Amino acid sequence: MYRSHTCGELRATHINTEVTLSGWVQGVRDKGFMIYVDLRDRYGITQLYFDEERSVKELMDKARKLGREFVIQVKGTVVERASKNPNIPTGGVEVLVKELTLLNASLVPPFTIEDDTDGGDDLRMKFRYIDIRRNPVKDSLIFRHKVAQAVRNYLSEEGFIEVETPYLIKSTPEGARDFVVPSRMNEGQFYALPQSPQTFKQLLMVGGMDKYFQIVKCFRDEDLRADRQPEFTQIDCEMAFVEQEDILNTFEGLTKHLIKETHGIEVNKFPRMTFDDAMRLYGNDKPDIRFGMQFGELNEVAQHKDFNVFNSAELVVGIAVPGANSYTRKEIDKLIDWVKRPQIGALGMVYCRYNEDGSFKSSVDKFYSQEDLAKWAEVTGAKPGDLICVLSGDTNKVRAQLSALRMELAERLGLRKPNEFAPLWVIDFPLLEWDEETERYHAMHHPFTSPKPGQLALLDSNPGNVKANAYDLVLNGNEIGGGSIRIHDKATQAIMLRHLGFTDEEARAQFGFLMDAFEYGAPPHGGIAFGLDRLVSILGGQETIRDFIAFPKNNSGRDVMIDAPAVIDKEQLKELHLKLDLES
Amino acid sequence: MYRSHTCGELRATHINTEVTLSGWVQGVRDKGFMIYVDLRDRYGITQLYFDEERSVKELMDKARKLGREFVIQVKGTVVERASKNPNIPTGGVEVLVKELTLLNASLVPPFTIEDDTDGGDDLRMKFRYIDIRRNPVKDSLIFRHKVAQAVRNYLSEEGFIEVETPYLIKSTPEGARDFVVPSRMNEGQFYALPQSPQTFKQLLMVGGMDKYFQIVKCFRDEDLRADRQPEFTQIDCEMAFVEQEDILNTFEGLTKHLIKETHGIEVNKFPRMTFDDAMRLYGNDKPDIRFGMQFGELNEVAQHKDFNVFNSAELVVGIAVPGANSYTRKEIDKLIDWVKRPQIGALGMVYCRYNEDGSFKSSVDKFYSQEDLAKWAEVTGAKPGDLICVLSGDTNKVRAQLSALRMELAERLGLRKPNEFAPLWVIDFPLLEWDEETERYHAMHHPFTSPKPGQLALLDSNPGNVKANAYDLVLNGNEIGGGSIRIHDKATQAIMLRHLGFTDEEARAQFGFLMDAFEYGAPPHGGIAFGLDRLVSILGGQETIRDFIAFPKNNSGRDVMIDAPAVIDKEQLKELHLKLDLES
Repeated sequence: MYRSHTCGELRATHINTEVTLSGWVQGVRDKGFMIYVDLRDRYGITQLYFDEERSVKELMDKARKLGREFVIQVKGTVVERASKNPNIPTGGVEVLVKELTLLNASLVPPFTIEDDTDGGDDLRMKFRYIDIRRNPVKDSLIFRHKVAQAVRNYLSEEGFIEVETPYLIKSTPEGARDFVVPSRMNEGQFYALPQSPQTFKQLLMVGGMDKYFQIVKCFRDEDLRADRQPEFTQIDCEMAFVEQEDILNTFEGLTKHLIKETHGIEVNKFPRMTFDDAMRLYGNDKPDIRFGMQFGELNEVAQHKDFNVFNSAELVVGIAVPGANSYTRKEIDKLIDWVKRPQIGALGMVYCRYNEDGSFKSSVDKFYSQEDLAKWAEVTGAKPGDLICVLSGDTNKVRAQLSALRMELAERLGLRKPNEFAPLWVIDFPLLEWDEETERYHAMHHPFTSPKPGQLALLDSNPGNVKANAYDLVLNGNEIGGGSIRIHDKATQAIMLRHLGFTDEEARAQFGFLMDAFEYGAPPHGGIAFGLDRLVSILGGQETIRDFIAFPKNNSGRDVMIDAPAVIDKEQLKELHLKLDLES
Repeated sequence: MYRSHTCGELRATHINTEVTLSGWVQGVRDKGFMIYVDLRDRYGITQLYFDEERSVKELMDKARKLGREFVIQVKGTVVERASKNPNIPTGGVEVLVKELTLLNASLVPPFTIEDDTDGGDDLRMKFRYIDIRRNPVKDSLIFRHKVAQAVRNYLSEEGFIEVETPYLIKSTPEGARDFVVPSRMNEGQFYALPQSPQTFKQLLMVGGMDKYFQIVKCFRDEDLRADRQPEFTQIDCEMAFVEQEDILNTFEGLTKHLIKETHGIEVNKFPRMTFDDAMRLYGNDKPDIRFGMQFGELNEVAQHKDFNVFNSAELVVGIAVPGANSYTRKEIDKLIDWVKRPQIGALGMVYCRYNEDGSFKSSVDKFYSQEDLAKWAEVTGAKPGDLICVLSGDTNKVRAQLSALRMELAERLGLRKPNEFAPLWVIDFPLLEWDEETERYHAMHHPFTSPKPGQLALLDSNPGNVKANAYDLVLNGNEIGGGSIRIHDKATQAIMLRHLGFTDEEARAQFGFLMDAFEYGAPPHGGIAFGLDRLVSILGGQETIRDFIAFPKNNSGRDVMIDAPAVIDKEQLKELHLKLDLES
């Protein structure tokens, strides 16, 4: 072992102990007759000390030549520090060095190893192995490990078995695009990498493994939006002989445990909200309920006057922004510009100040009386001092717009507190959703989700209205998990696939094994999957997932550090029975 | 929840309790006026009871119609069983059923759900979801989970951090063949699936994450031998600031812990043996040391007479088979036939009986005196009653042959006891091994393994003799783990790659990121990787890994259950910029 202690370990109790430390040179302060070196490892920083009186010249010279990020080993004695540093745990002591061994030199690192580094994103990704030495990244990876361990131990205690499902599986046209893997031994054929172990976990239920989980990599070949990765990690779970209530309670328990373990916070029973209510009250199926600003639908109290913008709208809806009556006209104009940006897409915004004296002042005063506006205040729950913001238009669009505005205002008002946790179950999702592009219904969750009891018949008459036994777990405005009670009989599964546009032959080719399995004693079952990357970032109080992934890919799906993907040998292609088909 | 208790839970203390059970019908015994149903789930079997006196006719009829593997829910009362079954934990009670709900019917399963099933391998694989209901498979998967949990908890306690490394990486020509993944977004380029996270774990060491582990899937596109899978699981570990001794001690600790946890057995300090000694004494770099029969090299005591077979041989080597003097001539002839089979390839076998009276009787008595044969006995450690078996020929071949014979005899003699654990460190492996096919040296471990101190210069003069800081952990004759201290400076790595036949350009293209990383403060580091599939099967006392993998592939790399790999759409190929290049 190259060390007797870590660089985060030494305290006053170690004074006069002979120690060996190894680590990276964080910095050298050369005062001429004495030299200080900050030595860093995963555990902390310890100050090394050399002085002319007690150190031979050779040693002083060696110390003087050290550069940032050199890897060294030192032997010496722990001594009390003259000027203590109360900001670090080792700040009371230093090591008077007697021996210094250079283990490896370093070029000047491309950015500083500090919490606030001078390195930009691209440089940090290219030299990720250096970036990981920085506390924000290192601590995020350690935090991720702790969360994953907590998940595994909690679920194991609850009788769940982690079962590894295969990575080389079969491509299915439903859902997102698969990554595929050509098979050398099976000419012209391909494996696919799993988008999730969905069918396998259902087969495990058929196999009697009634409480399954797995922390597992999943793959989606999608055009990457910011903060999406082609490979991502799921906490994948399934239970047999359960109803929706059992799943919600089990994974509410897990989530509470994680919040407790990571923050020491006890969260009460999670509230539940139907999908319809979430859309009506927050314009969003993953509402952040750490703060209010619930939507108030104003059609009844705003469509009786001559204001045509409202009268022609499918939905008129507003929120009361707490204390925002203090906004200047200019600030409000900026807000109006904000909602009119193409990303949001509102055509305009009506506002109404609720003055401290109880009077109202709106941008549409020529259409609405004080009594009218008092009703707006009542519906939106506004109080004196608030600002009511009102949008109007097509229901779906205007809800999305107002939801975006609500989140933006909450951000500006400091209402999205990273150390506050407001989980929420959103339940009763629709079974299907209409896809504008392909002009047909898609499974909102996936094709294996069961409709609510008795609603199967509705699939023909009113498919958009069929509700599913599907649920999402939302934490602070992010969907951290989602699942459903599954179909477990062949007939229902066949009906479902037919409604999703599969011919019976296609259904057979893709999911024959699952439909067969349903004929050999499939128990009722259901489950949930959590996005681990997102979960740990939210629990870690961060907005982005990047630093919780050791080696993330960029927005083109490239690993810029190892420079992948890359071309492969002709020979290798030939073995795989493939030719390139380049557009050139 | 569809149940109040599991089918493995009820005991005499539950008598008179009202319970709800769910599970699979293991069997129905219809005695006319009473019906017994065995209800099974993951946890056990509980007997259900219906009788004409206490059950309505409708219920009796329902019970009568149940078939094997039907999924049912029953409500009833726990009662004492008239004729108890001491063989199962629930055997003292049964449930007098009041309500029966059919949750799902089942076709007649293709094989019996018994420990000794009537299903052949192919059928079991096709219907793996039914096979998993059988105890041998179910218990193996649960055992695997427990081992994996024990590994994670032990290493976490020791300060190791599990870090997820990427699955979509870069293809390298060194080592086995990669599975590749065409990139849609990067035309003409491919990712590769990792054969191991080797370079990433080394980069984590450069990144300061000084104790890393990961239980991770790895992929090799090799022609499959029996009991090899294209995807397999590794316990991958790496440490920084360590020497070989530290790695051996740390993972000896882990292995002891696993043997203790799974079998309650405390194993003493693991013996260590050099690669050279292992080859000399066992003809094998993974000797099973649960039993003796060490090799005795007989050249000195057997090459002084007129027996040309021995005189012309590079190596004459024998083992003393305990008690095998009792073998008949016929049995010995069979043994000779066995070593002459093409799989073993010996040209013949000389034997020598060591009689109880101290005399010898050999197949080469016309060449060797009693005194000569006494020396053979001395060298092989034979005792009266043993049989000495001697092979001769080229060193490498004859060692492999005698090693195979030793294992075969141990098997026949019952010396390979599944519940005895004899771990062994094999150390000081050669750095390189000569490959007959390509006529060049390959890295025996991998290109990142460091040579023993001071041996770098030997690389030019005598490459085959260079020893590496490489070690294997052997358990009961199986390599369960292997690792090395790595190279951590750019210059040595460059020399190594050059000796492996890489041009500097190739080295740069493949491993440039790693060589760069070595220039930014790489600490000394090393590690080990365990094959989890093999480890759990050995700890589970089994010879094959199949039942420890939930959904294994067959010898053509196919998943016969889901029928993968499979053809994909032309459209999908086009998006990936690929065309098929079939031999047709």
